[in-house]
Parts: sequence; C-alpha cells; structure tokens
Amino acid sequence: MGQDQDTRSDRIATGISPEIADKITATAHRLADVARQETLRWFRSPDLHPQNKAQAGFDPVTDADRASERAMRAILDAERPEDAILGEEFGARAGQSGLTWVLDPIDGTRAFMAGAPSWGVLIGVTDDRGPIYGIVDQPHLGERFEGGFGRAVLTGRDGTTPLRARRGVDLSEATLMSTYPEVGSAHEHTAFRRVADRARLTRYGLDCYAYALLAAGHVDLVIEAGLQSYDVVAPIAVVQAAGGVITDWTGGDAHHGGRIIAAGSPELHAQALELLAG
Amino acid sequence: MGQDQDTRSDRIATGISPEIADKITATAHRLADVARQETLRWFRSPDLHPQNKAQAGFDPVTDADRASERAMRAILDAERPEDAILGEEFGARAGQSGLTWVLDPIDGTRAFMAGAPSWGVLIGVTDDRGPIYGIVDQPHLGERFEGGFGRAVLTGRDGTTPLRARRGVDLSEATLMSTYPEVGSAHEHTAFRRVADRARLTRYGLDCYAYALLAAGHVDLVIEAGLQSYDVVAPIAVVQAAGGVITDWTGGDAHHGGRIIAAGSPELHAQALELLAG
Repeated sequence: MGQDQDTRSDRIATGISPEIADKITATAHRLADVARQETLRWFRSPDLHPQNKAQAGFDPVTDADRASERAMRAILDAERPEDAILGEEFGARAGQSGLTWVLDPIDGTRAFMAGAPSWGVLIGVTDDRGPIYGIVDQPHLGERFEGGFGRAVLTGRDGTTPLRARRGVDLSEATLMSTYPEVGSAHEHTAFRRVADRARLTRYGLDCYAYALLAAGHVDLVIEAGLQSYDVVAPIAVVQAAGGVITDWTGGDAHHGGRIIAAGSPELHAQALELLAG
Repeated sequence: MGQDQDTRSDRIATGISPEIADKITATAHRLADVARQETLRWFRSPDLHPQNKAQAGFDPVTDADRASERAMRAILDAERPEDAILGEEFGARAGQSGLTWVLDPIDGTRAFMAGAPSWGVLIGVTDDRGPIYGIVDQPHLGERFEGGFGRAVLTGRDGTTPLRARRGVDLSEATLMSTYPEVGSAHEHTAFRRVADRARLTRYGLDCYAYALLAAGHVDLVIEAGLQSYDVVAPIAVVQAAGGVITDWTGGDAHHGGRIIAAGSPELHAQALELLAG
C-alpha cells in the first residue's frame, strides 16, 4: 500500500498499544453500526419532524440525531467508562483515561432533512494532543471511511479499499468543496473566493462527505468556516491517515473547529493557505 | 396509492396502448441497466480523465459518458428502430413513430468527476406534445426513479416504493435546490434569490438528483437556468407522474430546456413563479 511507514509511526506516536488500538477500533465500529440503524430508521421517513433548536436561524434537530447519540453513548458507558465523551446533542462526560470520544450523530442535518445522502455519522477519538482515530459513516450509501492506528480504508458494499488522498494536483487543476457558498462571514467568504477563483471546479453541499471524498482521492480541497470540534475530529483522523493535510486557516491545529482547510497534498495546502491569508 | 386517477388519465392522453407502454418501459429499463454498468466501470476510477469539450469554461466529457450513450443507442437500434433519438453526446437520429428517446448518459459530469453520487443517467421519451415517460437513475446509490404510463416509483436496494411529491408546504417552510449558487446570468441569479430569500432552506450541488428528491417528497422546489432539453425531459416525466408541477419560469412547457422550475404542489409553484417574475 505504500503508506505503512506513515501510519505505523502515527500509532507509535499515540502511545497506544496495538491491543488497545484494536479495542478502540472495535468499539468505534459498534458505535457506527448502531448509529447507522438509528439514523436509517428516520432518513426519508414521512414522520421526520424538525424542531428548531437555535433561536435564530434554521438548525433542525431530529429525533434521529438524539436516538443515534444516545445509542452510541450507551455502548461507551458499557465498554469505555474511563474515557471522556464530547457529543453534539448531549454535551460532555468527563473521563480519566486521557482519551475523548467526539461524536456527531448526524453531521449535515439539513442534507438529512432534504433526503440527500451527504450527511454522516462522525466518531472521533482524541488524546491530549488531538485526533488519533476517526470514522465518517454514510449509512444510506453503506460507506464507512476510517482512519488511524495504521488504517486508512473505505468499507462499502463492494468490500474494503485503501484510502489515499490525491497528490500532484496544482490549484489550477483542483476540485474544491465547501458546504455553503457563503462559507461564513463576509471576510471568510472573500478569502474563500480567492481560492475558488483559482481552482478548476468548486462544488457545494456535501457536508462531512466532502472530507471523505478528499481522503478517497476524488476531491483536492475542502475549505469551511464556523465548524465545531465535533464536526472535524473524525474527518481530521481520516484525512491525515489517507495522507492529506488538514489545519485551520493559519496552518494550526484544526481539531478545535473554526476555519478549516483540508488538502490532498502539502503543496496544494500551502498554495491555498497563502490565498486564504490574503 | 390515491394517484391512479391522474396517471391513468395521463396514459390515455398519450394515445399509447398499455402493450406499447409496457414495451417502451421494458426497453427503458434495459437502457438504464447498461448505462449503470458502463458508468460504474468509470465512477471513482483512477483512470478517469476529463477532456474539455467546450472552448470556454469547464465541461468534462468522460469516456464513461460516451460509452454509456453508445450502449443505450445500440439497444434502441435493435429494439426501437422507428423512434427518433436525441442524445447529449452523439446528437439526433430521425424517426418515423412520433416518439423520441432523449438521453443524457451522465447528467452532472462535474459531480461524477468529484466522486459525488448526485449525477444520474437520464432516459426520457417524448411524443409530439412533450415527455410521456422518464427514468432518472443513480447507479452508485442503486436508485431508479421512474415516471409515466401510470407508474411513479423508486426502485432501490430495499425494493420499490411509490413516488409522491410533498404537498401543503408554504414557501416559508420549503426546501429549495439548485445545482449552482450563481444559477445563471446576473438577472437569473437575482430572480432566484427572490425565491431563496423566502424559502426555509436552500441547498446546492445535486444536479438531476434534486428532481428525483422532489418527486420522492423530500424537496419542495428546484429552480435552475441554462438547461438543455436532454437535462429535463426525464425529470419532467418523473416529477409530473409523482404529482409535482414543472414548467419554465413563465409557466410554459419545460421540455425545451432553459429556465426550469419544479414544485411539489401547484400552490407552491404559483408562489415561486410570481417571485421569479419580479
């Protein structure tokens, strides 16, 4: 596969033994399995009723969202009681192990409401330095993108294939994605446009699935703003395991959220970062 | 299903007997089957190389596109030699039956290039008054949306379900889709924004799949500009069979392409049409 060197050194760097890594991985897949069940019960159901959780703006929270996170937390309560949890719907639980599970039961609730299969279940694990493992699962497509502990794979209906970000693509040839064309503030939009105006193709509307496509080598850049930690921890692990680069817009750590840029290669990342800075 | 009345009257209106309708339907499914094979051979393949077919702008034509249309035409040559053909890649073939097959082997080539499953194979049939039958097929999802001759169904991995556009949704509660945020010319963009500013939610990037989601009752409005005939004939048949309304921006026939609006209900269509007119 040619990626063993990177990923093996990643695993050593986490200070987590292969046995513990296997346990974490197995638990993560069980979370993704129950979340898939819970979300598909509601996806495209006529009974799907959104509620506004934000006073201003439109931010649908579905019963699926809550049921999905509740089911994942029940597994963590049983299997990983010593780890901390940060979940979109039910907040934080403290832990003693130094590991935190970062859960977004439905990233892309608007896509979910519209019946579009670009939403995902995000399951990330961090240690005190950042993301070490993550799953981006798309239940309707039956696609699970996974990265960390020496693994970078897509498991779909046709089996398991390695994930590898595309390299050697100049910005003038690049495909760029962002969820919303407005991106964020007027300033953020202007910075984004400086990159988009130089990219070959810009597409919108894919939520977390854009990071999965970057890890799979189909998309070259994802640039977003206003993200939360639970939106990015799992994508970071998947993108990095696939050889991609993901940081904030200044080149710093991405896992706190905010303004995020992911690129297939360090060279493309540097090109885009310079344009974002103005 | 409650839709028998509409669709039965549609079939009578076409002047096509149930026997002929069944033959056309069977041929259409064979076209969709071979197009699915041909396109999936290339989708997400590292061998996928775009070529520029337009002098200005970015309009990738893939070998998949051509292979897909060629395979469909071979079936029509054998099974429907008396019908005319209008295809995106290989142009028009004259016919004597009064029926025309309108083919877009890959609608949404940019989504196709980016690995996003919102492209589709479009297979439409028109008589001298317009679309009478259509298929919107999404090969990667394994979803086939079909409308006409008394049928309005989605056949997916979990079986076949009826398609029914959502009714009783006011614009203030509506989900609106368009493929590109710029929509078209500055004038067209301004008109689109008048509707978008009143809709609850606007999403981009789904190509023909947006019409399929409207027919399935998940999306309430699709508004686009600059479409070709082969982009809309199949979606028109599917949307109308599902009880939706689809016209140009003045309320006239949509099947020549141009500026298109699809709505889940006549009331919502009227609301949006008034705003588009300014």
